[in-house]
Amino acid sequence: MALWVQKFGGTSVGTVERIEAVADKIVAARQQGHDIVVVVSAMSGETNRLIGLAEQIQSKPTPRELDVLVSTGEQVTIALLSMALHKRGCDARSFTGSQVRVLTDSAHNKARIREIDADNIRSEVDQGRVVVVAGFQGVDEEGNITTLGRGGSDTSAVALAAAIKADECQIFTDVKGVYTTDPRVVDDARLLRTITFEEMLELSSLGAKVLQIRSVEFAGKYKVPLRVLSSFEDDPGTLITLEDKNLMEAPIISGIAFTRDEAKVTVTGVPDIPGVAYQLLGPVSDAGIEVDVIVQNISSDGTTDFTFTVKRNDSDQAKAIVEGTAKKINAKSVKVDDKIAKVSLVGVGMRSHAGIASQMFKTLADESINIEVITTSEIKISVVIDEKYLELAVRSLHSAFGLGDEGENV
Amino acid sequence: MALWVQKFGGTSVGTVERIEAVADKIVAARQQGHDIVVVVSAMSGETNRLIGLAEQIQSKPTPRELDVLVSTGEQVTIALLSMALHKRGCDARSFTGSQVRVLTDSAHNKARIREIDADNIRSEVDQGRVVVVAGFQGVDEEGNITTLGRGGSDTSAVALAAAIKADECQIFTDVKGVYTTDPRVVDDARLLRTITFEEMLELSSLGAKVLQIRSVEFAGKYKVPLRVLSSFEDDPGTLITLEDKNLMEAPIISGIAFTRDEAKVTVTGVPDIPGVAYQLLGPVSDAGIEVDVIVQNISSDGTTDFTFTVKRNDSDQAKAIVEGTAKKINAKSVKVDDKIAKVSLVGVGMRSHAGIASQMFKTLADESINIEVITTSEIKISVVIDEKYLELAVRSLHSAFGLGDEGENV
Repeated sequence: MALWVQKFGGTSVGTVERIEAVADKIVAARQQGHDIVVVVSAMSGETNRLIGLAEQIQSKPTPRELDVLVSTGEQVTIALLSMALHKRGCDARSFTGSQVRVLTDSAHNKARIREIDADNIRSEVDQGRVVVVAGFQGVDEEGNITTLGRGGSDTSAVALAAAIKADECQIFTDVKGVYTTDPRVVDDARLLRTITFEEMLELSSLGAKVLQIRSVEFAGKYKVPLRVLSSFEDDPGTLITLEDKNLMEAPIISGIAFTRDEAKVTVTGVPDIPGVAYQLLGPVSDAGIEVDVIVQNISSDGTTDFTFTVKRNDSDQAKAIVEGTAKKINAKSVKVDDKIAKVSLVGVGMRSHAGIASQMFKTLADESINIEVITTSEIKISVVIDEKYLELAVRSLHSAFGLGDEGENV
Repeated sequence: MALWVQKFGGTSVGTVERIEAVADKIVAARQQGHDIVVVVSAMSGETNRLIGLAEQIQSKPTPRELDVLVSTGEQVTIALLSMALHKRGCDARSFTGSQVRVLTDSAHNKARIREIDADNIRSEVDQGRVVVVAGFQGVDEEGNITTLGRGGSDTSAVALAAAIKADECQIFTDVKGVYTTDPRVVDDARLLRTITFEEMLELSSLGAKVLQIRSVEFAGKYKVPLRVLSSFEDDPGTLITLEDKNLMEAPIISGIAFTRDEAKVTVTGVPDIPGVAYQLLGPVSDAGIEVDVIVQNISSDGTTDFTFTVKRNDSDQAKAIVEGTAKKINAKSVKVDDKIAKVSLVGVGMRSHAGIASQMFKTLADESINIEVITTSEIKISVVIDEKYLELAVRSLHSAFGLGDEGENV
């Protein structure tokens, strides 16, 4: 029938009991006639335990040796899962990243996959075996063990699916799939049956972190159908599809993402001269502070107001840095507001429909929610608002755009 | 200066603190100008933890997957030790069995080493690096991970030393070296500065288990000078030498080994016909019971008495089996004595000196210790005695043969 890559994360293989449950799932898929290649993470907690040992020795462990160390986490899981499959009479064989030959560059702790030897895996599958692969790890040209960085198992699964031309790459998680918004905030948040890669990218980066963003990019690039589903329930979850498919029927808005814990830094009276944005943000970025939204309005009097958002934890440091720059460039003032939240509407349908923005602004105005900053992209509109209105804003928008279980149309 | 292989067992690397102490020892040896290749075991307890996980899934874990699992134990240690060396400014690099290419056969869980790629290691050493190798593990022709069986790290170290033509293979343990007998029984047991491979083999198999017997055989075969010394003290320990060297000056007796927890099974009135020994012992051995000493006296009346010893735990089962056989072959009776102990004198000097046996028997007689069974080999005399006299016998013999700290001559 079909060839599936199934990926199970740390929580799904966190105990021996859960590993046995994963084995049951795989055997069930085999009995339906599918060929299965499994990718697993380390048992939850194990990677942290190993890093803890390393940090007792070196505050910044040698990158090469850290990879040798943490790669044992997945190696333990592949062995245990293969045993659980054997116990069920299911032929299976484990492979480390090096045994598959997941060839990566030599950037230890954050390696990038270059090539996967598909023949090895294919030949095992052809012999009727389930192939159990250690995620997150690879090997460089010289045979050094590398890792893709934390959470890289999703990327391993997608890359493997692309290499062996799998019919589907199924990422099992502890949620049922991708929702229109966070079900903890909106009671009738609806599980999406399909979503496009582009929408998924916007939703991931905006906080609905179901999948590693890199793996979604990868799947989109190599056109690997990606499915997110629950390890603990029997549900088909959400299929992430290529944009072109079914665009006609696509709902205008797919979901609402939001972020808390941001802070807004506004510099007023900035002389409106070329290079000023770089002068302000360069030092912030050099300090390793991640900047999210950036807005600058057109000036009328030769000065402009410049606003950006950062993680709340970084706001003090960002303020200090920007105050230094503001003095140099003769800006008027620096203000920080750390009680803000960002809400974003995401949907590919937005492209062809006017009026989404105005409907969004009207919905918020009806609830007397003031919009502080607005940014837009082709498939996304984000607003920054007072944090205390976050839940209200998300619920109103969810309902206004008909995202709930009741209606599927706007 | 010299090229040393240094092997540190599980206890020596059992905690991060101990790994740091091992790093100190290696750095000290480097500072004396020596090139060092290190072989390490898993941190103590780790292998058992991993096997415990496997046994929660399969009572008899799939051998291939068990090797994938337990080999992670040493992989963790090589990474941590390399980090500890880096922290001390000492260039080091870790290697798994597969990375070195310790090529073994495919007998999972009890693989035998076929070949070690010495060029890899040599080239690292030539670049001034300490090479840190995972003991106990290798890889077969197909790239499957294999292990040598528990305790196999000693064998890894010796094989590696032979492959790279090391000047010495140093096995660090939790004892200072090889003693004339167990220091817990005899206060003035003396640390031997040298001992021959042959003597060491006899002492190992007889209970003074400092080294894995397979590694001693291996070292003897490939003429690798082997040194046993303490991880926790600064002492040159015991050098295990080739037999020929210094034989002239060799003491007659090197040590006294002993075993408790044995039981003696005696079959009386056995018809003295060919094949009777096999008839008696075949079924015992088929039941997986290990037989140690075997003695049969020449018969006078057409029957003989046949005696053998087994582990005390096995004595009931052995008795039941032998009783069945005794009936068939018309033997008179089967008696079991499970309160016995075995004491052995070991020494290559014994070959050229008469009278060792009689001196041994006289010493025991002087203490009114009755000898129940006697067996001899070229470099060993063993007696079976009542267990309650064990300590007395060992102490008397230790003193009679001048093995204590006071005298070095017989």
